[in-house]
Amino acid sequence: MKLYDGGRAPNPRRVQIFLKEKELELPTQQLDLNSLEHRTPEMVAKNPAQTVPFLELEDGTVIAETIAICRYVEELHPEPNLFGKSALERAQVEMWNRRAELGFLFKVAQSFRHLHPGAAVLEGEQIAAWGEKNKKLAVEYIAILDDQLAENEFLAGDFFSVADITCFVAAQFFKPARIVLPETGLEHFKRWFAEVSDRASVQL
Amino acid sequence: MKLYDGGRAPNPRRVQIFLKEKELELPTQQLDLNSLEHRTPEMVAKNPAQTVPFLELEDGTVIAETIAICRYVEELHPEPNLFGKSALERAQVEMWNRRAELGFLFKVAQSFRHLHPGAAVLEGEQIAAWGEKNKKLAVEYIAILDDQLAENEFLAGDFFSVADITCFVAAQFFKPARIVLPETGLEHFKRWFAEVSDRASVQL
Repeated sequence: MKLYDGGRAPNPRRVQIFLKEKELELPTQQLDLNSLEHRTPEMVAKNPAQTVPFLELEDGTVIAETIAICRYVEELHPEPNLFGKSALERAQVEMWNRRAELGFLFKVAQSFRHLHPGAAVLEGEQIAAWGEKNKKLAVEYIAILDDQLAENEFLAGDFFSVADITCFVAAQFFKPARIVLPETGLEHFKRWFAEVSDRASVQL
Repeated sequence: MKLYDGGRAPNPRRVQIFLKEKELELPTQQLDLNSLEHRTPEMVAKNPAQTVPFLELEDGTVIAETIAICRYVEELHPEPNLFGKSALERAQVEMWNRRAELGFLFKVAQSFRHLHPGAAVLEGEQIAAWGEKNKKLAVEYIAILDDQLAENEFLAGDFFSVADITCFVAAQFFKPARIVLPETGLEHFKRWFAEVSDRASVQL
């Protein structure tokens, strides 16, 4: 099994943190996204959707998409559990992971990709108005996360899950996305961020 | 258990088709998205992220996000299986569902939301350049789906899965999104679309 990784971009970071939570190390080949190494004919033959990271199994089968990789690893190495232990927990992890991803990380990433000059090589045509809209929506969305974290230690309840990884990576990406967190308010989100920042798995 | 549904919009359709594949009917309340019935204080209290559909359990617990709902239903009613039967199948269903969703449905939906005057009530500020970019990218992405369907009866292999539901709903949404499929080429995608169109679960 071999991981094709992509440095410190958000999706590569999600899988890196997930593997560290599992205390796993996989043989890894780094692809330099800024040199478009993930779009060479060799890599496109492996992963036509050109997303990073992706996993290549011994027989050449490729599993791409961050959460597909995480789920596959979870099945092979169930502990510590990061997707929930009952039908209801698993549904709540899925819900909060998707909220963290589609509601939050996606907007942070769109802000970066459409406002940062360094992202033009990846994005092609940048649309500043779309970047600005997402920057605003990403910050607004934190209120939903903050309300949840007022009642729960972690995003999906009282246990750390893959939803926390997604949400943390999004928050860590504020700087390249040029997003500034309001100085006052969002105390529960800030409490959670400080706690997750202390985990061994997220250290660089 | 009660489903808060949203008519013929793509995510409501995904859950409706999923339930029909399972031959399940749930008590349902329709929310009129164009009247913003999903954004009333009562509904926001249930589902702060304001996505539709969502499921309310007997104790008031809410499970939102299309795929979280589908996964929960799959756990309660495992047959027919729509998420894969082995670790590898489940990873491949997750991968293809995400490709169908993030690579394809999302782009089709963005095209609709930023180009169709009727979508302004949902989207707020519409950004035509972003709509046009997604329209182009959605059509380009079909080549990836077509290549997969050249080798496989269904998107994740030789079995119908939730990935096919996502992809089919995206393709059915071409008309409101003002996307026209090229007349020539993409034969495997067209073969698959015709076959899925015949399933009892997708009939309106």
